[in-house]
Amino acid sequence: MVCAFQMLCPGCVSHGLPQAQRVAETFRPEDVAVIGLHSVFEHHEAMTPKSLEAFLHEYRIQFPVGVDEADGDGIPHTMRAYAMQGTPTTVLIDREGRLRRQAFGHLPDLQLGAEIMALLGERPDMTQVSSAAGEVCTPHGCT
Amino acid sequence: MVCAFQMLCPGCVSHGLPQAQRVAETFRPEDVAVIGLHSVFEHHEAMTPKSLEAFLHEYRIQFPVGVDEADGDGIPHTMRAYAMQGTPTTVLIDREGRLRRQAFGHLPDLQLGAEIMALLGERPDMTQVSSAAGEVCTPHGCT
Amino acid sequence: MVCAFQMLCPGCVSHGLPQAQRVAETFRPEDVAVIGLHSVFEHHEAMTPKSLEAFLHEYRIQFPVGVDEADGDGIPHTMRAYAMQGTPTTVLIDREGRLRRQAFGHLPDLQLGAEIMALLGERPDMTQVSSAAGEVCTPHGCT
Amino acid sequence: MVCAFQMLCPGCVSHGLPQAQRVAETFRPEDVAVIGLHSVFEHHEAMTPKSLEAFLHEYRIQFPVGVDEADGDGIPHTMRAYAMQGTPTTVLIDREGRLRRQAFGHLPDLQLGAEIMALLGERPDMTQVSSAAGEVCTPHGCT
Repeated sequence: MVCAFQMLCPGCVSHGLPQAQRVAETFRPEDVAVIGLHSVFEHHEAMTPKSLEAFLHEYRIQFPVGVDEADGDGIPHTMRAYAMQGTPTTVLIDREGRLRRQAFGHLPDLQLGAEIMALLGERPDMTQVSSAAGEVCTPHGCT
Repeated sequence: MVCAFQMLCPGCVSHGLPQAQRVAETFRPEDVAVIGLHSVFEHHEAMTPKSLEAFLHEYRIQFPVGVDEADGDGIPHTMRAYAMQGTPTTVLIDREGRLRRQAFGHLPDLQLGAEIMALLGERPDMTQVSSAAGEVCTPHGCT
Repeated sequence: MVCAFQMLCPGCVSHGLPQAQRVAETFRPEDVAVIGLHSVFEHHEAMTPKSLEAFLHEYRIQFPVGVDEADGDGIPHTMRAYAMQGTPTTVLIDREGRLRRQAFGHLPDLQLGAEIMALLGERPDMTQVSSAAGEVCTPHGCT
Repeated sequence: MVCAFQMLCPGCVSHGLPQAQRVAETFRPEDVAVIGLHSVFEHHEAMTPKSLEAFLHEYRIQFPVGVDEADGDGIPHTMRAYAMQGTPTTVLIDREGRLRRQAFGHLPDLQLGAEIMALLGERPDMTQVSSAAGEVCTPHGCT
């Protein structure tokens, strides 16, 4: 999974990157590799690799992030090659390296989880999630 | 998918039922059938089938909901048969009718979507989600 | 402050009652008295005082709640006397017992806090809130 | 009200700045002046005035923002003068220009609204908020 983003794109900061982080935490690394792609097409002077480094540190992004270098006209190379409309864009590539899904904007977790699993074709070991405290009822009372 | 709940269980109202609703909206009905199960094990007099009817109306629950009838000791029959710990409980049953997953408490959407798809074994047509307004950036500006 | 609600009104459960709870926790009891009012105008058989009791227990409502008894036509007495449009309705009564504000629907916390304080006319001792962990940056790092 | 922040401080982006924006929208400009203060004490090369400009544009910050210039050791001048612990920091200054409140971290809206009003000493005209659609019940049904 590739998460194309810009560090100053509000939708990327509030939705795209946290979702990519959740994907990285939910699936096993051998099943799903999550990669960030910094595809800057505006405010180039404010979103340099140096600034990106500070951003990734402060937002504690754990997955690897590549820089999508801009061509002469300011549009990043990979963004153009993939004909992305903007950021955030989510790209799913299957085990054989084929591009299988490209979505601009927000994709609900339920759907993204299903699409990733459809590409995996088999069930990976996911983190087993225990109950959230204070949100369940048992015959011994609600907690 | 079965969503076992109680109408006065806060975690069911805020997490379990809305998630079941999202599943019903994300997958095709021929792929995933979502069913609610009202498994009342406390406050029986406050959560009668009559009260449930009003609740389902006000919360606009769209999927069918069955009533899990209590045995003599107040524990509902299906809840005991499935050895559920409490509510909400999510149950996944595959195409062959086998119980494949039972989770007490909150299951993240990303994981639930993946688990459902693992059981489907093939990609269903999901609702294609368009970008959320105001949350994306394009070379023509952020909207 | 009076919070008129119905136990099966979604907006009351997700917004009105939690907000009333926050008011009760933010202001001193000698400055602001928070009272719930169960003003049922529909599904009477599902929202009896007995059901309300179970609801208040499960949702851990800490402030006192009164029952607004229905007149012959099913409209509760106080709801009619105050000409409330529906639920949730927030009512602010000043120290002299005069009705100063009545709002149907959701009132933002920022505005409600300001309106309550305008009626108090002086600063009460509010709970001093410490910083939320993991959400601040200091010269020693973001935590 | 002064909102001291750093453009790459997650708590400022998700809590501090949106709250300052809400204050600016809730109170009349003649009652409350909201000012942002970019108090950078780390990653100076990534949070330059030029980068800040892009950030303010993308996040649509409407209130004026000043730059807190760093002294020789990288700690901004005003941040040191006010002995701020970090970002976000909220500062309330009364009509006479006296510093009345300084809070590091997150301040709940309810409390902030009350504190601002306590300083105003009288009720300003706030935006009257209408009911949020789909979240209220009336005798004609829940909408």
